[in-house]
Amino acid sequence: MYSEKYTPGLLNSIADVPGISVGHYTLNNADIQTGVTAILPHQGNTFENKCVAAVEVINGFGKSVGLMQVAELGQLETPILLTNTLSVGTASDTLIKYMLKDNLQIGAAGTVNPLVLECNDGYLNDIRGQHVKTEDVFAAIENASVDFSQGSVGAGRGMSAYKLKGGIGSASRMMQKDGVEYCIGALVLSNMGRLQDFSHYSKELEHKLQQQLAKRLSELEGADNGSIIMIIATDLPLDARQLKRLAKRSVVALAKTGSQLGTGSGDICLAFSTANQVCHTEEAMGTVTRYPENQIDRVFDSAIESLQQAIINSMLNAETVQGHKQHCRISLKELI
Amino acid sequence: MYSEKYTPGLLNSIADVPGISVGHYTLNNADIQTGVTAILPHQGNTFENKCVAAVEVINGFGKSVGLMQVAELGQLETPILLTNTLSVGTASDTLIKYMLKDNLQIGAAGTVNPLVLECNDGYLNDIRGQHVKTEDVFAAIENASVDFSQGSVGAGRGMSAYKLKGGIGSASRMMQKDGVEYCIGALVLSNMGRLQDFSHYSKELEHKLQQQLAKRLSELEGADNGSIIMIIATDLPLDARQLKRLAKRSVVALAKTGSQLGTGSGDICLAFSTANQVCHTEEAMGTVTRYPENQIDRVFDSAIESLQQAIINSMLNAETVQGHKQHCRISLKELI
Amino acid sequence: MYSEKYTPGLLNSIADVPGISVGHYTLNNADIQTGVTAILPHQGNTFENKCVAAVEVINGFGKSVGLMQVAELGQLETPILLTNTLSVGTASDTLIKYMLKDNLQIGAAGTVNPLVLECNDGYLNDIRGQHVKTEDVFAAIENASVDFSQGSVGAGRGMSAYKLKGGIGSASRMMQKDGVEYCIGALVLSNMGRLQDFSHYSKELEHKLQQQLAKRLSELEGADNGSIIMIIATDLPLDARQLKRLAKRSVVALAKTGSQLGTGSGDICLAFSTANQVCHTEEAMGTVTRYPENQIDRVFDSAIESLQQAIINSMLNAETVQGHKQHCRISLKELI
Amino acid sequence: MYSEKYTPGLLNSIADVPGISVGHYTLNNADIQTGVTAILPHQGNTFENKCVAAVEVINGFGKSVGLMQVAELGQLETPILLTNTLSVGTASDTLIKYMLKDNLQIGAAGTVNPLVLECNDGYLNDIRGQHVKTEDVFAAIENASVDFSQGSVGAGRGMSAYKLKGGIGSASRMMQKDGVEYCIGALVLSNMGRLQDFSHYSKELEHKLQQQLAKRLSELEGADNGSIIMIIATDLPLDARQLKRLAKRSVVALAKTGSQLGTGSGDICLAFSTANQVCHTEEAMGTVTRYPENQIDRVFDSAIESLQQAIINSMLNAETVQGHKQHCRISLKELI
Repeated sequence: MYSEKYTPGLLNSIADVPGISVGHYTLNNADIQTGVTAILPHQGNTFENKCVAAVEVINGFGKSVGLMQVAELGQLETPILLTNTLSVGTASDTLIKYMLKDNLQIGAAGTVNPLVLECNDGYLNDIRGQHVKTEDVFAAIENASVDFSQGSVGAGRGMSAYKLKGGIGSASRMMQKDGVEYCIGALVLSNMGRLQDFSHYSKELEHKLQQQLAKRLSELEGADNGSIIMIIATDLPLDARQLKRLAKRSVVALAKTGSQLGTGSGDICLAFSTANQVCHTEEAMGTVTRYPENQIDRVFDSAIESLQQAIINSMLNAETVQGHKQHCRISLKELI
Repeated sequence: MYSEKYTPGLLNSIADVPGISVGHYTLNNADIQTGVTAILPHQGNTFENKCVAAVEVINGFGKSVGLMQVAELGQLETPILLTNTLSVGTASDTLIKYMLKDNLQIGAAGTVNPLVLECNDGYLNDIRGQHVKTEDVFAAIENASVDFSQGSVGAGRGMSAYKLKGGIGSASRMMQKDGVEYCIGALVLSNMGRLQDFSHYSKELEHKLQQQLAKRLSELEGADNGSIIMIIATDLPLDARQLKRLAKRSVVALAKTGSQLGTGSGDICLAFSTANQVCHTEEAMGTVTRYPENQIDRVFDSAIESLQQAIINSMLNAETVQGHKQHCRISLKELI
Repeated sequence: MYSEKYTPGLLNSIADVPGISVGHYTLNNADIQTGVTAILPHQGNTFENKCVAAVEVINGFGKSVGLMQVAELGQLETPILLTNTLSVGTASDTLIKYMLKDNLQIGAAGTVNPLVLECNDGYLNDIRGQHVKTEDVFAAIENASVDFSQGSVGAGRGMSAYKLKGGIGSASRMMQKDGVEYCIGALVLSNMGRLQDFSHYSKELEHKLQQQLAKRLSELEGADNGSIIMIIATDLPLDARQLKRLAKRSVVALAKTGSQLGTGSGDICLAFSTANQVCHTEEAMGTVTRYPENQIDRVFDSAIESLQQAIINSMLNAETVQGHKQHCRISLKELI
Repeated sequence: MYSEKYTPGLLNSIADVPGISVGHYTLNNADIQTGVTAILPHQGNTFENKCVAAVEVINGFGKSVGLMQVAELGQLETPILLTNTLSVGTASDTLIKYMLKDNLQIGAAGTVNPLVLECNDGYLNDIRGQHVKTEDVFAAIENASVDFSQGSVGAGRGMSAYKLKGGIGSASRMMQKDGVEYCIGALVLSNMGRLQDFSHYSKELEHKLQQQLAKRLSELEGADNGSIIMIIATDLPLDARQLKRLAKRSVVALAKTGSQLGTGSGDICLAFSTANQVCHTEEAMGTVTRYPENQIDRVFDSAIESLQQAIINSMLNAETVQGHKQHCRISLKELI
């Protein structure tokens, strides 16, 4: 399914990067199939100690917020939230409230840059209802743990991938450098693709799907207008420019699973490092570690491999969901 | 103050571009000095008939939402909202609600890209209170008119420019092409700059300010961490690439008023054309008008001149405001 | 090897796009294994009638010239030259001479933007010798024809792909829109990749290679530091923004053949349309055709399919070459 | 003329940054008024020890080469050459030869990225003649010294600024950080602007010019189609992202001298730091110094001030030149 030249971490998830935790809040009630997922980049105050970060917009047909400042400053200063497209306003408003609580300095000389990434789950979820509430967003953040579920959970609840069930997936790869062990982890919210493009597509797969969907074959058709959010995290000391280069490689993982980058698919990658954190009040010269560019290919390889497995994991872990207008997305694991 | 090689339109405002209207909702109550400003690009359904648009991020230290998709598709599909930084979540959530109301197709195959631009008014306004409410945002949109106020109104209520009072300013320039009259209009939300950088700075100005502020001289100090939002609108048939080039010239107007593009100032320009609108369901080849690149310098000149006057107008029209923590910004017109 | 959902043109090459021709000049003499390839976008004066164009820099570790102005103006005003990295200076100087000859207006108010794209053929070619001469560049342009060779010819003479022989490859796909036939054509100069990443990699392939190379197994190793140049041409009326989106999809074709976008591989795509040409002296408003964005997915699909086949064609058509330091790259067709 | 809040270095030139030297080769013979200027970023082997660098393309209507790789890798690995637009091919070819000489490893695994920036001197110089020769380029590099001329010399010989004589200008500003002295230096090749936009424009200036030019008033007219190249150098330990932000501020200096960024003016800034150099063969983790972003405004201010003075210096130091077709550009110093 994907090469495994590199060794996964203990959890084979983004939480193998020390400090990272992930929390979900899932809404599962008839027409309402949606939720929120929160990624905490470390366990301290993310505003006080910012992670170096970069973003790559593969296809900008999307409504994520907070990416402009990440691109400018090369910094991430809040948890990362994932949710459905029409709940981004509520999610970002709540993330601001969450940040205000612990950081009294916000609002004086400067404010805070909430980071909320999204996909459109309107096929399975009554997205027009804007069902995600402030308390749901807080719950996702509070649920964060190194041990988290994948598949049809949190923001992944209503998502589709290659016209099958998509959602949250994760993976990781370990590497050694100068005798020290480092981790490259990935987490995706998968919601993209056409069935015929899927790298595991076969006539047999399509036949099984048609049987399960009986007369609702239209569920297998349609354009790629879903989006995918890809997160890469590492404890390697990469700077913002190197993380940008890493984020640019995410499209390789995506293409290898079959995506053709449909016009309506907002495909985005955010990459961050937990090394060389920047203190909010940093005023003096400091010393940081520099990763040699000549050695970056294996970081690229590890990220691509992690992301590709994370995408497949998002599908293998996702249970079948029936939701809005009785639309249904079937789990890949029921078909293989 | 600024060159006037080109002739202003009848209103000398962005509303000289046919179809454009502007509405404010102002919150003015002791510590609460903030608001919302809405710019309607035309009087029809902006989702059904999208304006060609482009964005230039001069300095990305800002929290605006919606710019990524404008950059990708070269289209604007909602009214443009301006507000304070920590109310962007509420404003975008409300703008989604506003768009859902009239567009039942949103949420099925695709969603909608709300455009909300912001500055930090935390010096005069209790920004941490997130005082802008859903009904305030709706009110700003509903108040839209070709005849609108400038200065300390709407989103401009709590803004500062060059440590004086800033806010909403507008201007326009007319030009003829092939015998037809066209308009280039500008609107700014000014909130940037240090006093000593202001192009009208003089020792006399500083002395007058010191007298008025008595012992609170600290109000004249501090870094440029405010931001400016610049909007250029035209009925010239520019495509997205040309509008991007136009938006890039906005920095000339800004620099000529004195800004040094401080690290903390989120300086952004959005440019759009009301010509060659794109129908949401466009499926067939169409014909559109192309503006000759060889003639674009005078469009650049007109936009720069409009923006420069709009910045000065935002200051000349702004009344003195005292707000949060009894901070005060004095009007330029009281000093000259 | 690659999907064929769309129908190739008559020649299955970039020359299926009406007006396009391609010429080579090949240097093949012991240590000297290099050359020049010229793509003429149309048969008129390319300076007088410019093609709309865009560029995507997938990985900017490269030395191509002319891309900055293409990105700014969305225009191509010369033939496109391909050659080896250290001959770019000679090639661009010669292309200037070629343009001066027929365009007396160059040098007065404005100049001309030569477009020269390159890969490093230093493995098979004595690249330090800078063996490409002015007359070789002129010869490549003069050799241009709709009927051109692929593989180890022209700029492709010394190139390697996935540690096999690479070089020039081409393909095309036809599509109908509103009852008219259009073509999307591709041409690549392939010089990238590691053997183990190749989508057709197998232990059997590697074993055959090892046998042929006897003791020189090191020829199969090493990083991806080669580069690929991908050209997309079409007679569809796409504007510069749409061509940029098209160029961004080239990475999908590249990834599907196996590339991991190695740090040292300068991977670049240039896309242009022969429709809606821009006259150098254009001063008046004009009317142009607009392609509907809602229909762009099949253009993306056609371009990806063409590029993927062009990459494979560059390998299948390339004969085995032994050159500099007796280095050798073996043809894929000898192995399958 | 420009603020002087910061103190110039001893030479008030880019050579105040330790290690930097500048050389010219000037062609001055009737119709031939052109040349080459070389900036050596340090006195060692620039390929072995690369400077951290970034580029900002303010307006991409230009033909410079080498910028793409600087943007990707954040590194400068050759001297910087300045020359006329149609001699870029010869200059880059010669720069490759110069680099090959001392670096035998070039051409094996990787090549070298020559950096050549240009303006169009076709008004005063017979640019179509491509008069710059290989030996002229070598001479410019060999002439490099900390003590160099400004004005109508080297690449500046045939350049015009605001329809007056332009060319090479330089300046510097010193700053202290954590008790250590640092320098921000600037060098420009000025060739942009319309007379009426010049910040020192007056009716009196125009009148004097008209008198000197007698009946050739057309020399004062015309669009801004010249270009400016701006170089910022510093020994502050800025990384590539910070240098990019610094380079973006160059437009402020340019605008303050009067430029409106005409469509035909290729306005480009390259910024580099001599601190934290990168060894070509770097394979291990290293430690580098990080400059605090919170303190970057005064770096911005110093760069803007240096660049603004460098532009004015390029005009004040330039002698009147008459050249091609007896066109003439008059020196600013003769007019004030």
